[in-house]
Amino acid sequence: MEENRIKELLESVRSGKVEVDEALDSLVRLPYEQVGDFAQLDMHRGLRRGFPEVVFGQGKTAEQITQIVNRLSERNERVLVTRLSAEVYAQIREELPDDAVYHQRPRALVINRANLVCRPGILVACAGTADTPVAEEAALTAELMGNQVERLYDVGVAGLHRLLDKLPMLRQARVIVVAAGMEGALASVVSGLVDAPVIAVPTSVGYGASFHGLSALLAMLNSCSSGIAVVNIDNGFGAGAMAAMINRLDER
Amino acid sequence: MEENRIKELLESVRSGKVEVDEALDSLVRLPYEQVGDFAQLDMHRGLRRGFPEVVFGQGKTAEQITQIVNRLSERNERVLVTRLSAEVYAQIREELPDDAVYHQRPRALVINRANLVCRPGILVACAGTADTPVAEEAALTAELMGNQVERLYDVGVAGLHRLLDKLPMLRQARVIVVAAGMEGALASVVSGLVDAPVIAVPTSVGYGASFHGLSALLAMLNSCSSGIAVVNIDNGFGAGAMAAMINRLDER
Amino acid sequence: MEENRIKELLESVRSGKVEVDEALDSLVRLPYEQVGDFAQLDMHRGLRRGFPEVVFGQGKTAEQITQIVNRLSERNERVLVTRLSAEVYAQIREELPDDAVYHQRPRALVINRANLVCRPGILVACAGTADTPVAEEAALTAELMGNQVERLYDVGVAGLHRLLDKLPMLRQARVIVVAAGMEGALASVVSGLVDAPVIAVPTSVGYGASFHGLSALLAMLNSCSSGIAVVNIDNGFGAGAMAAMINRLDER
Amino acid sequence: MEENRIKELLESVRSGKVEVDEALDSLVRLPYEQVGDFAQLDMHRGLRRGFPEVVFGQGKTAEQITQIVNRLSERNERVLVTRLSAEVYAQIREELPDDAVYHQRPRALVINRANLVCRPGILVACAGTADTPVAEEAALTAELMGNQVERLYDVGVAGLHRLLDKLPMLRQARVIVVAAGMEGALASVVSGLVDAPVIAVPTSVGYGASFHGLSALLAMLNSCSSGIAVVNIDNGFGAGAMAAMINRLDER
Amino acid sequence: MEENRIKELLESVRSGKVEVDEALDSLVRLPYEQVGDFAQLDMHRGLRRGFPEVVFGQGKTAEQITQIVNRLSERNERVLVTRLSAEVYAQIREELPDDAVYHQRPRALVINRANLVCRPGILVACAGTADTPVAEEAALTAELMGNQVERLYDVGVAGLHRLLDKLPMLRQARVIVVAAGMEGALASVVSGLVDAPVIAVPTSVGYGASFHGLSALLAMLNSCSSGIAVVNIDNGFGAGAMAAMINRLDER
Amino acid sequence: MEENRIKELLESVRSGKVEVDEALDSLVRLPYEQVGDFAQLDMHRGLRRGFPEVVFGQGKTAEQITQIVNRLSERNERVLVTRLSAEVYAQIREELPDDAVYHQRPRALVINRANLVCRPGILVACAGTADTPVAEEAALTAELMGNQVERLYDVGVAGLHRLLDKLPMLRQARVIVVAAGMEGALASVVSGLVDAPVIAVPTSVGYGASFHGLSALLAMLNSCSSGIAVVNIDNGFGAGAMAAMINRLDER
Amino acid sequence: MEENRIKELLESVRSGKVEVDEALDSLVRLPYEQVGDFAQLDMHRGLRRGFPEVVFGQGKTAEQITQIVNRLSERNERVLVTRLSAEVYAQIREELPDDAVYHQRPRALVINRANLVCRPGILVACAGTADTPVAEEAALTAELMGNQVERLYDVGVAGLHRLLDKLPMLRQARVIVVAAGMEGALASVVSGLVDAPVIAVPTSVGYGASFHGLSALLAMLNSCSSGIAVVNIDNGFGAGAMAAMINRLDER
Amino acid sequence: MEENRIKELLESVRSGKVEVDEALDSLVRLPYEQVGDFAQLDMHRGLRRGFPEVVFGQGKTAEQITQIVNRLSERNERVLVTRLSAEVYAQIREELPDDAVYHQRPRALVINRANLVCRPGILVACAGTADTPVAEEAALTAELMGNQVERLYDVGVAGLHRLLDKLPMLRQARVIVVAAGMEGALASVVSGLVDAPVIAVPTSVGYGASFHGLSALLAMLNSCSSGIAVVNIDNGFGAGAMAAMINRLDER
Repeated sequence: MEENRIKELLESVRSGKVEVDEALDSLVRLPYEQVGDFAQLDMHRGLRRGFPEVVFGQGKTAEQITQIVNRLSERNERVLVTRLSAEVYAQIREELPDDAVYHQRPRALVINRANLVCRPGILVACAGTADTPVAEEAALTAELMGNQVERLYDVGVAGLHRLLDKLPMLRQARVIVVAAGMEGALASVVSGLVDAPVIAVPTSVGYGASFHGLSALLAMLNSCSSGIAVVNIDNGFGAGAMAAMINRLDER
Repeated sequence: MEENRIKELLESVRSGKVEVDEALDSLVRLPYEQVGDFAQLDMHRGLRRGFPEVVFGQGKTAEQITQIVNRLSERNERVLVTRLSAEVYAQIREELPDDAVYHQRPRALVINRANLVCRPGILVACAGTADTPVAEEAALTAELMGNQVERLYDVGVAGLHRLLDKLPMLRQARVIVVAAGMEGALASVVSGLVDAPVIAVPTSVGYGASFHGLSALLAMLNSCSSGIAVVNIDNGFGAGAMAAMINRLDER
Repeated sequence: MEENRIKELLESVRSGKVEVDEALDSLVRLPYEQVGDFAQLDMHRGLRRGFPEVVFGQGKTAEQITQIVNRLSERNERVLVTRLSAEVYAQIREELPDDAVYHQRPRALVINRANLVCRPGILVACAGTADTPVAEEAALTAELMGNQVERLYDVGVAGLHRLLDKLPMLRQARVIVVAAGMEGALASVVSGLVDAPVIAVPTSVGYGASFHGLSALLAMLNSCSSGIAVVNIDNGFGAGAMAAMINRLDER
Repeated sequence: MEENRIKELLESVRSGKVEVDEALDSLVRLPYEQVGDFAQLDMHRGLRRGFPEVVFGQGKTAEQITQIVNRLSERNERVLVTRLSAEVYAQIREELPDDAVYHQRPRALVINRANLVCRPGILVACAGTADTPVAEEAALTAELMGNQVERLYDVGVAGLHRLLDKLPMLRQARVIVVAAGMEGALASVVSGLVDAPVIAVPTSVGYGASFHGLSALLAMLNSCSSGIAVVNIDNGFGAGAMAAMINRLDER
Repeated sequence: MEENRIKELLESVRSGKVEVDEALDSLVRLPYEQVGDFAQLDMHRGLRRGFPEVVFGQGKTAEQITQIVNRLSERNERVLVTRLSAEVYAQIREELPDDAVYHQRPRALVINRANLVCRPGILVACAGTADTPVAEEAALTAELMGNQVERLYDVGVAGLHRLLDKLPMLRQARVIVVAAGMEGALASVVSGLVDAPVIAVPTSVGYGASFHGLSALLAMLNSCSSGIAVVNIDNGFGAGAMAAMINRLDER
Repeated sequence: MEENRIKELLESVRSGKVEVDEALDSLVRLPYEQVGDFAQLDMHRGLRRGFPEVVFGQGKTAEQITQIVNRLSERNERVLVTRLSAEVYAQIREELPDDAVYHQRPRALVINRANLVCRPGILVACAGTADTPVAEEAALTAELMGNQVERLYDVGVAGLHRLLDKLPMLRQARVIVVAAGMEGALASVVSGLVDAPVIAVPTSVGYGASFHGLSALLAMLNSCSSGIAVVNIDNGFGAGAMAAMINRLDER
Repeated sequence: MEENRIKELLESVRSGKVEVDEALDSLVRLPYEQVGDFAQLDMHRGLRRGFPEVVFGQGKTAEQITQIVNRLSERNERVLVTRLSAEVYAQIREELPDDAVYHQRPRALVINRANLVCRPGILVACAGTADTPVAEEAALTAELMGNQVERLYDVGVAGLHRLLDKLPMLRQARVIVVAAGMEGALASVVSGLVDAPVIAVPTSVGYGASFHGLSALLAMLNSCSSGIAVVNIDNGFGAGAMAAMINRLDER
Repeated sequence: MEENRIKELLESVRSGKVEVDEALDSLVRLPYEQVGDFAQLDMHRGLRRGFPEVVFGQGKTAEQITQIVNRLSERNERVLVTRLSAEVYAQIREELPDDAVYHQRPRALVINRANLVCRPGILVACAGTADTPVAEEAALTAELMGNQVERLYDVGVAGLHRLLDKLPMLRQARVIVVAAGMEGALASVVSGLVDAPVIAVPTSVGYGASFHGLSALLAMLNSCSSGIAVVNIDNGFGAGAMAAMINRLDER
């Protein structure tokens, strides 16, 4: 949305020609911006959904990502690009804003100029060391959305005492993200021990009959414990965003 | 847990021999009861997780369900049996507590003697009339867990105006359950319009390449909108329970 | 078909020995040409089906593609090679006709010496920037087949206003191609808003449980909106060709 | 939409208070009707999409279907219920409008009070006798939508002469629906012989590795012939509706 | 093998005409008996593998089962028929040996005239009440093969304390069979707590994305804990037989 | 083809107006007969392919089967209907030719008025008693096509000696059909022992991860032994027909 | 088998100590040779099955292939290595026998010192140019096994006239191999036109919903034409070997 | 667990303050060590389960593996890293303990400072040369766990005599590991010949419809022979560990 259109609208609000709710509604519903011939950025997603449009890095050219990030960066305090390979990042780093930070493990690019007071309550757990990139994507996302995140990594069910030892930490959390590959049992076990909702994110860690995360996905969907909902395989971002959305519920 | 064990424990607490937290811990962690040779009821699940153990009716004999429901009913104010076929219910209705109510569409048996003040905030939407049994299971579960539930049925994306017409209702909800079969697109569309978390429950409604709900399940897992998490196909109960767990977050 | 055979036939037609329809029939049904020991080019496909044989570039050697393109180019005004990798193109570009143009995004090679008056009526829409290569393949194909193509890219359902904003453009189209990956919901939503047939092309954009386009494919096949038919995953060519075939119906 | 609301609107149009396009727009976009607590009938779908909302019979109770059909019947000249089992029909026939006709093979209920001049151009072909229920569903749907339908049944590729014998009939069609189970080869073969678009509908006819229609579905999606698009397994309705939508293109 | 053939052979052994190993070899390798035109009973399987041929009841006619059981019963002290439906049993019970016992839950027919001293060491655990038929099939099989079996039912991971409470019982077992449906997590959790080999048997308990036991099967195959091996879905017999075979290892 | 048309043609041949090959060609290529509005019987398939059109009983109504069988029976000496359920047969038996015989196990209806001299050389083997219906369908088909068939049933690899004992019988066969469900190993083992081609037919015998014959199908397709080709799951007819076609090769 | 062992045996035969059949039996059943610690070459497979053991090149190291080929080459007149990548071949070519020939398209290594009189009768057809590597593997194998092979390439069903034009060639063949990817329809169409057995080999040519050859595989397994049997995806070798085995039937 | 903590505990045991079982229990249940922020090593797994935590090399960075191996090596006599690529090993070899040995074929890193007396009884068999890496992983694991391992490689069922020749070796084994890809038939055949438990490990050897080991996996799960249990595709480690756990049963 161009600035003068917003200005016009707001002046109409001040003068009483337009009601506040009506103006808010139109700001929430309408605007987006064209970038090149390949993207229509939803510039008011932040207003409507609480966080600006997130860029899915995979399948976009280096050129496209550069243009999109720069445009988003002009309009927003926070920018997130997920699934950005180290190779593409290396190509474009010079053309990005100076305050853009690339996180290797979760392959995410972050710009964060907001000074958010962090809401506690989110715990991100994962079953094995190989699951940490996904867990980190979740944690990073939740942090960028204004949350303070506890991490509890490598607590798979083959050594249950590592998990039971952390029961107080688990019980204190308001929302828990559990990332696990292979048989994905950690989600059920954690959920059975707490009364917080669990966002389960299956990872593609494993081989053979894990079928790139299918085994963990199915296990999590079929949990015998209630209070679990599942996001896509390796979708740390989705899990983090869902957890953040839940954790801010009491602000409504 | 037998009554005298609880009594003993509480007297130890009063006399100072046992600390309050310690006693609470043991109550939370330990007890269950044996029923026949086929079940170990987790009698303190209510204490630990906020709701008593729910009975999965499918695959149990009429005899087993009768015994389990009666035992649970002696110890709890609320009992829920899911996936109880009308046939089995007809066989056992005489042997169940008088206040047990059977709900035909969601095939659920409910006992509710609790006088809960209902928390508003949950909306259950579904795409088509054929999805209502699953939607009703979700709604019923959330209600039994102390929530007031809004229903918005038959608002599939083929007639988008039916949904857009209800935007204010959608925007007011704190948590939304979306049940949809076939291509399951409703979850993404609803999520894109609101800033509340969406619990998506794919249904087995459809035929051919819907593969008994697989198409809707995959669609929901791959939503391009964040703030969606998914439960098992036809798992209205799981969606309702997750929504209830999220909706009570501000009590913590 | 060798020239003298055509000539003979036509002279028989002029002299009345052979009826026009009969001659047309034999021209339509019979001829093809051998190229090397690996291809039998269907040289009269243009006559029979309205467009010359299209070359499927994948799985052919550079040598084979060169020979086939050159032979087709001698006999036809238009040539299309799909799924031609940039690597193979780089190898063979010197040996191709001068007017052959390679399109990077859709990986297509095009020769177009026909001066077709372009028929309006086709709209190609896609859900995200990563879907544009497939959308471009569809658009390019339809253009080569004599259509004027409108493009509407990056209008996924997570930001529905971008789409609703373009309703007039959607309603004006006679045939719509919708390319979308992930949950593929755009096809259903578009179809519900218009009365034009929609050719849905699922893309392999996504990860995890998108299973390389399976999620979008199933979603599109299970659309609750009628007036949608589906082509193979990433088959922009097929979608464009189908749209072109439909759009010329009123010429019959 | 109630009659007086339409009347009001039209009077506003006549008096010039409302522009024609604006009125049309609101008629096209907005209205639906609530039936019971389970359905929101999209009453203006006929206006927007050219045909009233079609009722998906499967998964609805006898009671629900009766209510929906009667309501639709009051507002529309044509009503179609698909996938209505003979059992449910037997239960409700007395409560339906007198002019409702049940078609056994395609399990469809039809009310048709419209006197449409039938548009020629659609051919429905099927591979074997066991595919005729699906083919009939397609033919019936296209007929109800105002088309004259040619039928060409039991022309599977194992006896190719049966098909080649009908070439003139195939070549005359403007749109062809091909229903086939098992290996689904008929769609490719037909498409290769004509220049009309082919709507392919895989059927669940077969056993073993046909996987309830999956083999035919995949075959049709992977056709080496262009000009084919596919609908869901056994979705005769969808194929017929798509064909009808295409066949009326020259009216636009 | 008829008795007189064995006698002859043994007399040859006593008289030194045939070496012991040679005779044993021929007894181990060769004989079977024809029953009707549909079965060749492997009469010496008991000698070769430690237990007589087990009859797979599914897919056989009542007549076939009767003949096979009676023939086996003449030659062996123990007979086991698995997957024998109650309906077929009701039809044939009069024609079976008097000491044949039918077990309803595991749908197994058993004849046991052997006075085996029971070997302790096998524990059969299951996750939920609905898994008990499979668990019972395992237990019954192991018992018939000369083992004393401990049962630990309904100890799913949603209420972990029920399991942890039985740690001593788990640690005492030499071989553990774990039957679980849904997410099948119990196998991993049990295995992580003990040093005995675990035979995991996925059950078809569940619905939706459990895909008739596939979710549990994949979970168990992908266990992050070593010392687990898996048998077919619902194959209680196979699990019990494997456990029995392992438990008798120290006799070798 | 009506008799007088054949007569006319043959008289033209005798008188020299039509060449023999030309007449044969037209008999081979062209004719079929319409039955009702649902079938086009390929009446000269016997001439072209060596056996008349076979009726696939599944998915056809009793009425359709009756009409088709009677028409075929008028024109041919042999008729075969596969997958004809006992229920449908009971309904129509009175209306069929007197010499029609129904075979219960393979659910096949056979009319055989041909006095063929039987060609030896085909062996049909199966792994277990439950596979015999499929094996019988194969044997019956091959017999009807003029072959003498040896049967070797219940020789699964769990008791290898039953198979090895029959090596001479296996080695004598010219073509072997192997029917097996579950892990389908029999095909590989048999093939490794002989130098005859093996037609492998997977059966749906099994449960759980046999996925209705998929396990046997995949095993047979992946055989480490060459000289195996596979037909559809439970397709005894196809295996028998293939074996018969191979066995008559030396007549060409 | 070392030469002197054979000599000994034969002398025993001549002197009458050993019967001919007995000696043949032992030659057929027993011998193999150890190569390194990784292979046991079945040296008498040629005697037993008519062709020496074929080497599966994939998954073996360069070192292993070299040793195996050289050993086989010492004992046999013909050697075949399938799936040998050009890279591995380049590494080992110097160490192979001089008369070893590498065929690029089918990635096969061949040694052929046998002067076989070639049996006519095999035709190898394929649908598209991209299928030729698989078709060539089949042709090469059949040739090495003593057959003369006709080739008919690029005759896919989208241009049916290319195939119909070659009817006489098709009708003359005794066995036909059909290689096709995508929808695999060529196998059914060819089979319907001839009375020779068809060995269908699905290829992985295609993309998207071809799922690496699955679509062609399923189509071929579900052919509505009898007289087709199928080998593994891309298994040209298997198809060629099966065809060769069938084509030599009249020698028995 | 640090040494002084163990010392303290043991002194309490000696002085009688702590009971032996209690101390053992705490040693068995509790301790683990944090490495970096990515791993919590289960340092007492050796005590609890008989072998120290095994490192899953795949998906870990070189840095992570180095740290983990060094830490484990300080506390244990034996260390095993599985699925460690040669590339990663080359990077880190300098930083590993001197006595670490890398095994190329099974891609495993081993440290073994224990002087275990080796228990005989385990046989590892595999079907083809391409299966040896998986077989070697199993053998290596079992050896490291204190067993003497017999190897029987390349004895696939296509040449059954190679296997039958080794019957005495098979019959002597107490536990047998069978690794096979493709159709995986070897497991059933071996199991049918012996009375030892068989651990079947499907390998991903094969192509096309082997679906990366799925065919072998399904075959092994559906074995008609009892006494088989299955581990994940290519999971040689799991098979070896299971075999070792079984083979030490008589020590309990």
